[in-house]
Amino acid sequence: MSTLKKAVVLLSGGLDSVTCLAVAKRDNYELHTLSFDYGQRHKIELECAKRCADAAGVKQFHLLKFDLRMWGASALTSDKLDVPDYNPGASSIPVTYVPARNLIFLSFAAALAEGLGSRDIFIGVNSLDYSGYPDCRPAFIDAFRNCARLGTKAVDEGWEYNIHAPLQNLRKTEIIRLGLSLGVDYSMTHSCYNPDASGRPCGRCDSCGLRRDAFRELGLEDPALAR
Amino acid sequence: MSTLKKAVVLLSGGLDSVTCLAVAKRDNYELHTLSFDYGQRHKIELECAKRCADAAGVKQFHLLKFDLRMWGASALTSDKLDVPDYNPGASSIPVTYVPARNLIFLSFAAALAEGLGSRDIFIGVNSLDYSGYPDCRPAFIDAFRNCARLGTKAVDEGWEYNIHAPLQNLRKTEIIRLGLSLGVDYSMTHSCYNPDASGRPCGRCDSCGLRRDAFRELGLEDPALAR
Repeated sequence: MSTLKKAVVLLSGGLDSVTCLAVAKRDNYELHTLSFDYGQRHKIELECAKRCADAAGVKQFHLLKFDLRMWGASALTSDKLDVPDYNPGASSIPVTYVPARNLIFLSFAAALAEGLGSRDIFIGVNSLDYSGYPDCRPAFIDAFRNCARLGTKAVDEGWEYNIHAPLQNLRKTEIIRLGLSLGVDYSMTHSCYNPDASGRPCGRCDSCGLRRDAFRELGLEDPALAR
Repeated sequence: MSTLKKAVVLLSGGLDSVTCLAVAKRDNYELHTLSFDYGQRHKIELECAKRCADAAGVKQFHLLKFDLRMWGASALTSDKLDVPDYNPGASSIPVTYVPARNLIFLSFAAALAEGLGSRDIFIGVNSLDYSGYPDCRPAFIDAFRNCARLGTKAVDEGWEYNIHAPLQNLRKTEIIRLGLSLGVDYSMTHSCYNPDASGRPCGRCDSCGLRRDAFRELGLEDPALAR
């Protein structure tokens, strides 16, 4: 029987969550990844999530399905809203924001962790490049930690969830450098909001733009764009 | 166009949530109910939820599906664990506890409310009779309110979620009295953890026992048991 501590790692298959998985692996946890098919525009990121989980040698890969499309309300879950082009200067909440997404994801992670007897949850949120998303900010993560403790057995058993957000204060270039140092193969990751039918990134959305600029700053080409 | 304020009401089809729906109706909200098919042992409660929503004249009945069975960890989502008999003296967290269930349910409610432009969520939690469930206690509900604000547009737009828990401090008899005064037909509700194949309550589990004792205290028979 494994004596490693178990961790639940939220895994979208994107650059950030795959780097976060590599950090959890470096920190020597038994890895239980959790991905969601929530009606997002494309499934390519879920294929990437599975491949990256396999490459990291995870103990369990969980995929949970539910359908947020019936609510619309985001360009990522509605065909009626277009994904906007990259706009590095924008500061308001973007149309790609999915209401309460990380709240939902973390809630499932807390449930899975409780069932596994794990107290450790990893999430690849980042508040520098994605500050437009409220559910990526430290104040939310901290409030969730408290809320999850009070809404589970933790409160009666006297323990706390550790919500690890190792990318919280890193710039995109620093995240990539960290991942490369841990052996992440970024050609296997997918971040684009609006890929073509074959899964190729559009190269134009916020997510593609952020990646491309960061790789260039490091003197590299984004290997996902070269796929 | 309706000028009523919209409310999202979590609706399991049980005695408490149906009473909670009647309170939201009394308070003159446009009603958007949210029910979950999460892999619970039986679907009869979802049929009851739909019937009760129709009877209350709700604007929208939402049913969201996901599968918690793959995690087990509760007698309600696992065939390997038996539902225990009613034990009014028990004080620890019961085996029917589903990890982080209300955290997950409220997270979806927050997402739906945000998409609808609603700030009001109703949940039929009750901390007197169900104090064994951490996610029914006031401290959790309050922490969730804060967490949901910080994890959604609320924080940037300067508003708060109102999490209405009108049954929080009522005893089961008081809940039933309240519901009867609001015209709730309790024969349409379903609370049993372990019904037979035709949907008839077992009459033996915690949930049946609590109902039966409360109706008797009021000099009534539980109409669900007489179905």
